[in-house]
Amino acid sequence: MVEATALPDTRTRLLDAALMVIRSKGYAGTSVDDLCHAAGVTKGAFFHHFKSKEDMAVAAAAHFGAMAEGLFSQAGYRTLSDPLERLLAYVDFRKSILSGTLPEFTCLLGTLVQEAYETHPAIAAAANRYISEHATTLEADISAVMATHGTPPTWTAASLALYTQAVIQGAFILAKAKGGPQVAVDCLNHLSCHLKLLFNHEPMERT
Amino acid sequence: MVEATALPDTRTRLLDAALMVIRSKGYAGTSVDDLCHAAGVTKGAFFHHFKSKEDMAVAAAAHFGAMAEGLFSQAGYRTLSDPLERLLAYVDFRKSILSGTLPEFTCLLGTLVQEAYETHPAIAAAANRYISEHATTLEADISAVMATHGTPPTWTAASLALYTQAVIQGAFILAKAKGGPQVAVDCLNHLSCHLKLLFNHEPMERT
Repeated sequence: MVEATALPDTRTRLLDAALMVIRSKGYAGTSVDDLCHAAGVTKGAFFHHFKSKEDMAVAAAAHFGAMAEGLFSQAGYRTLSDPLERLLAYVDFRKSILSGTLPEFTCLLGTLVQEAYETHPAIAAAANRYISEHATTLEADISAVMATHGTPPTWTAASLALYTQAVIQGAFILAKAKGGPQVAVDCLNHLSCHLKLLFNHEPMERT
Repeated sequence: MVEATALPDTRTRLLDAALMVIRSKGYAGTSVDDLCHAAGVTKGAFFHHFKSKEDMAVAAAAHFGAMAEGLFSQAGYRTLSDPLERLLAYVDFRKSILSGTLPEFTCLLGTLVQEAYETHPAIAAAANRYISEHATTLEADISAVMATHGTPPTWTAASLALYTQAVIQGAFILAKAKGGPQVAVDCLNHLSCHLKLLFNHEPMERT
């Protein structure tokens, strides 16, 4: 808890609330009242900052993307010098943050686009933008690793980077279905195994 | 189109409608009126067959699971005699059915559980049941392939089977984000590549 005097501004409080409430109840299942209640602000304040619930969701996607960007760019694994070690450490880092409750560790972007892709194209575009931007942060490392491997692959660094995100998004769905993170940890272990096989890393260690 | 005299019964029409409407608009975004309108039935008829929208969604998950079971059990690839070829052909078959519109080829179960896992535990349980049952259909083939490979893996056949479903669910999310199936095809190619590497199959062919 922060002191009342250090509370974030109203817009940020609404966006922080949106991250948790939408990840708990889904986009359509979340009302403006739910968001105002969770943020402790009035409906008037909500509509002062956002034209609509859709407008708020687009801003929440940007807020989530910025939060993720901060988290990953400052994580310790980023300082590893070898691109393959950095790529594998990214997957390990993703595993290490699978803690807390499901709304805390699952992805706002995947949740939003899953249900709103057709009814709210602006939300789908925002989800695509921030998922794709995050995938892009892996591309340079994948390209560097690919360059050290002789056989030209049948896929691009961009495609493998997106594949890692598909695994993570799908792992969240299975975690929701099974009510906890273990299945997602297992999926990230399989992803790690794939990257090691692909790039002739030492075999996956026993656990 | 079928003749009016051959129309399925009201309950089946509602469940068929639910498959399309929920995959288009999400669970919370779909009203009972939407379902009645899509099925061409009255609200009275809806509540004659289902206690609630949640009750209908649980039945729709079962209906979707049964439809998938029929589709996969009767697919040509099931007649292949080699378990590894059958496993790889399963992935190819999943690729071959990535056609039509997004609501036609994406998964009702993943869509339901993504948004309703916390607010509707009965829906989450149904999604988990049918996703897990489908994964189980791959386990015997994976076990048979594993038995022919010397090094004991650090994972189980059940876990690899679930991983294939995570990839498929995540591929659907990226397809929704990007507005078409190509990224999902790419993801299934990476999955196929993983299975081939894992089981020393010949390298992924050039495309």
